[in-house]
Amino acid sequence: MKHNFNAGPSILPKEVFEEASRAILNFNNTGLSILEIGHRTPLFQAVMDEAISLTKELMQLDDDHSVLFLHGGATTQFFQVPMNLLNENETAAYLDCGVWGSKAIKEAKLFGQVNVVATSKDKSYTYIPKDYTVPSDAKYFHYTTNNTIEGTEMLEIPETNVPLIADMSSDILSHVVDFNRFALIYAGAQKNIGAAGVNLVVLRKDILGKVNRKLPGMMDYRQHIEAGSMLNTPPTFGLYFAGLVFKWLKARGGLTAIGERNRAKAEALYGYIDSSGFYRNPVSKDARSWMNVPFTLAKPDLDKTFLTEANAAGLTNLEGHRSVGGMRASIYNAMPIEGVQALIGFMKDFQRRHG
Amino acid sequence: MKHNFNAGPSILPKEVFEEASRAILNFNNTGLSILEIGHRTPLFQAVMDEAISLTKELMQLDDDHSVLFLHGGATTQFFQVPMNLLNENETAAYLDCGVWGSKAIKEAKLFGQVNVVATSKDKSYTYIPKDYTVPSDAKYFHYTTNNTIEGTEMLEIPETNVPLIADMSSDILSHVVDFNRFALIYAGAQKNIGAAGVNLVVLRKDILGKVNRKLPGMMDYRQHIEAGSMLNTPPTFGLYFAGLVFKWLKARGGLTAIGERNRAKAEALYGYIDSSGFYRNPVSKDARSWMNVPFTLAKPDLDKTFLTEANAAGLTNLEGHRSVGGMRASIYNAMPIEGVQALIGFMKDFQRRHG
Repeated sequence: MKHNFNAGPSILPKEVFEEASRAILNFNNTGLSILEIGHRTPLFQAVMDEAISLTKELMQLDDDHSVLFLHGGATTQFFQVPMNLLNENETAAYLDCGVWGSKAIKEAKLFGQVNVVATSKDKSYTYIPKDYTVPSDAKYFHYTTNNTIEGTEMLEIPETNVPLIADMSSDILSHVVDFNRFALIYAGAQKNIGAAGVNLVVLRKDILGKVNRKLPGMMDYRQHIEAGSMLNTPPTFGLYFAGLVFKWLKARGGLTAIGERNRAKAEALYGYIDSSGFYRNPVSKDARSWMNVPFTLAKPDLDKTFLTEANAAGLTNLEGHRSVGGMRASIYNAMPIEGVQALIGFMKDFQRRHG
Repeated sequence: MKHNFNAGPSILPKEVFEEASRAILNFNNTGLSILEIGHRTPLFQAVMDEAISLTKELMQLDDDHSVLFLHGGATTQFFQVPMNLLNENETAAYLDCGVWGSKAIKEAKLFGQVNVVATSKDKSYTYIPKDYTVPSDAKYFHYTTNNTIEGTEMLEIPETNVPLIADMSSDILSHVVDFNRFALIYAGAQKNIGAAGVNLVVLRKDILGKVNRKLPGMMDYRQHIEAGSMLNTPPTFGLYFAGLVFKWLKARGGLTAIGERNRAKAEALYGYIDSSGFYRNPVSKDARSWMNVPFTLAKPDLDKTFLTEANAAGLTNLEGHRSVGGMRASIYNAMPIEGVQALIGFMKDFQRRHG
């Protein structure tokens, strides 16, 4: 039994792998692979329809919000958002809480004015700033809900009157959120949704059509809404796979239940780290991520030994991000509590032998 | 035994489906699914490296050409090409030979001047224009090598002195081409490469860096080259799958051998259609596609009966494109000659019963 702590592409439900593996050979008893089903066929339309309706159900979206599945990953959204929403002379507010947020800021500057209302860069992004104001004339306010690399997460939605936009790539569908408060949400699929190469975008139509630049078809959210995410050939296998993950999540009680499990997993791991006297998490306690838990050893020269031994014990991909070092345990939706317990057990044993 | 004639996503090699199905459960004996392998791991880097090196080998590319695997499909290239290569006051030459080419023209007009050097729209795109000149001051000349919807193909490369750019989405890797004559080639994967959501781009670096607009990171070919197609998380499963298809193609003799098989399949099908006195292909004989064979019945009111009976006989997805009607048999690389023979056998029988 292996437990995969990779930050993404990352652990996904075993049952879903099994069903997807069968569908690669024979999708829905058609005698055809899911990979050779044309996207304009009724068979695939049903896959798309189900993925959209399950997304709406899991996120409890109101009728003002449209669900899109696009190509390009969240990094494409870094520029597609301002391209669609920000004129050159207008200002958007951004919170700078990590590597991804600062990349989004860089891209937005190509299209309009950016007001970085706060940053936690002064302490290597290990906390979430609180004392800031979003100017009421900002076109929108953009932030990253979970910082995969730094291990911070904003579980509460900031109070503001301007349209809220969030990159939820690494904590989408991991706990209950009032998603309807957002004007636009985007999330790369490769953590809690499924296969890399699919990007979920949830947005309110009324924010669109207000910029004066001409948009290429593939960059225009309105065209994607009109085409039902089939403006061109969608990443069909990824869509199918996302639908399976959504069904798995629904069968396990949806966001309320998974949120409780994710909280319990995070509390167990942080609780142990804090009490160990050997391991250390660098993040401010009120900003700790339920998804990504970076930690260091009291003796950093043991990092390699830790990783080698962990790997031998079936606990894989615990390397910290290349920009941060140390260790990182990503414990997304599909990570069972048993995986976290196995990690804690190994960490205790390692401390006993090397501490 | 089913034969899938879908235009895309379309038939792919059975052996590849089998290997991919296993890798969804256990990739390379890692005990992990290919879908949960992080893109920054040595395991996935090897997948990417192999996909790139097999592409170079199959296409016999020289060292001036870089291979990229990008998100977004060919439709994204419709605008990414002019965005990277065409200033507002400059002119690019385009050949208008079908639905996809005309979409590319529309997107290019957002970025610069477009000179449509010739079009076959006057006869519903059923032929390839020959008498045209590409102005020597055009920034580049763009054309579509194979028109999936209309069933035309340009097997010869047009003579011109300006940089050649081709959308090869539906005939890439289907026969020998001097790919090094192109400045840029792009192709959505979902015909002869694999899973929808991956886009192959082959380009010469020296054409880049000459436009004066600022490019978003994800739109900048130079950044993708520098990052080895890992500027963000690539569509990892699609990359893995493409590598399997490339290996399959190489093991079967590469482009020379597949080109001969594709020619034989096309000649058999067109030969029968022309001789039947019942079926008809609307395309000019010197422009017929080896990949997509549209045909009509002498009695169009029998279309539905034909499709229903064909489907019952295991010959699936023969519907013509919704904009054209009639029938279309797509006979990409993975379609065996036996599939074409089965189709011809059925067509003969149908004609005998209904002709």
